[in-house]
Amino acid sequence: MADPWQECMDYAVTLARQAGEVVREAIKNEMNVMIKSSPADLVTATDQKIEKMLISSIKGKYPSHRYFLFYNGEKYSGLVKETFFLLQMEFGVVYSCLEDKMYTGRKGKGAFCNGQKLQVSQQEDITKSLLVTEFGSSRTPETVRTVLSNLEKLLCIPIHGIRGVGTAAVNMCLVATGVADAYYEMGIHCWDMAGAGIIVTEAGGVLMDVTGGPFDLMSRRIIAANSKTLAERIAKEIQVIPLQRDDEE
Amino acid sequence: MADPWQECMDYAVTLARQAGEVVREAIKNEMNVMIKSSPADLVTATDQKIEKMLISSIKGKYPSHRYFLFYNGEKYSGLVKETFFLLQMEFGVVYSCLEDKMYTGRKGKGAFCNGQKLQVSQQEDITKSLLVTEFGSSRTPETVRTVLSNLEKLLCIPIHGIRGVGTAAVNMCLVATGVADAYYEMGIHCWDMAGAGIIVTEAGGVLMDVTGGPFDLMSRRIIAANSKTLAERIAKEIQVIPLQRDDEE
Repeated sequence: MADPWQECMDYAVTLARQAGEVVREAIKNEMNVMIKSSPADLVTATDQKIEKMLISSIKGKYPSHRYFLFYNGEKYSGLVKETFFLLQMEFGVVYSCLEDKMYTGRKGKGAFCNGQKLQVSQQEDITKSLLVTEFGSSRTPETVRTVLSNLEKLLCIPIHGIRGVGTAAVNMCLVATGVADAYYEMGIHCWDMAGAGIIVTEAGGVLMDVTGGPFDLMSRRIIAANSKTLAERIAKEIQVIPLQRDDEE
Repeated sequence: MADPWQECMDYAVTLARQAGEVVREAIKNEMNVMIKSSPADLVTATDQKIEKMLISSIKGKYPSHRYFLFYNGEKYSGLVKETFFLLQMEFGVVYSCLEDKMYTGRKGKGAFCNGQKLQVSQQEDITKSLLVTEFGSSRTPETVRTVLSNLEKLLCIPIHGIRGVGTAAVNMCLVATGVADAYYEMGIHCWDMAGAGIIVTEAGGVLMDVTGGPFDLMSRRIIAANSKTLAERIAKEIQVIPLQRDDEE
């Protein structure tokens, strides 16, 4: 019997590769950057072009599907609210186009990068852990202060180190591959986390709220870790930043 | 006429590729990590093996040369002190082996990545700038606090954002390629900066001390930027961390 979800995921992979090709071409010349919500939150003409391309491709092939797109700094989620009542996530695709890494995860079927099976690390000792996070796009002094005070508390545990490659989805995939032991962030959106979330859990990792409670896709915050132990240890240090939820008006 | 420095640089490139091959092989299995100066400062058996390989290769071919090696988290610099009185840097080679990027810079002859000429970005407006830095390997509370307070001042200017890939040499090469606009850090060593320093300046960038004064290779601190303007703007925000110089007993 045909596997409709597999076909669907294969199509997503094809579209991601096409989008990656457009990005790689554009990046050679593109200088036309526009400010979105702040000087830290930008969008380019290519972002908008790719968004349109992806949306019309998906709508053309699967008119009844609900989906999220997260592309570069730009995202489309006109259907966010209803989606969560209709649908469990079936698969996630993250394409890091400049390094040509295609990450995929499908519920119950494992996670892969360029065809190689992914497995989270086994490091549960926080003092030996490498975390990934970002400074976020808010430049409000109180928010920046909380972000940095959380980093200070974690660094002084001490931990091994902190990195950040600049995008939530790829940071989460680094946890899935075992390169990093955990990722946390506040201020991102459901479309930033949904795809890579499946990749992390299918690689054996866990998702948790930064309070230590259950992960809530609409809360705009996440810990994605190799284990419950490490996620809970990180949650203990994190002071929460007030944020408007993705399902709030 | 033969060009002795070119031959020498070609040999360095060959050795870097060989070392990269060893790393890529080892990284598939290696789990034997040893602590060097702190839980943030590690070394592996492969680091030590490669160090020996590189040193004996260079000594074998160029017994009279003075050189620096910076390899992964490990470095060799038995000749540091005398070197700076004997020699100006002629070339630098940085190989980011997992992404297979070979960066080279030769005095007066430009900087390249995998054969492609490098040019720093033209962004001199700090509010649109992407900086690269690291949290450093010290976990002393005062040092961590100063590192974070410098980040806070920069973020609140505001700037576009901050990234860090985990190693000084590659961060500096990101400035040379124009991906990032500037890099700064305190606590690194001369062997972390020397090779990539030439790559940055040959790509049109500048090196400066974090105080805004002239760059001092033994000071353990650096700003590497696309322009004097951006370097000076960053220097204005940075509070200096006390450090023992590389040429101090």
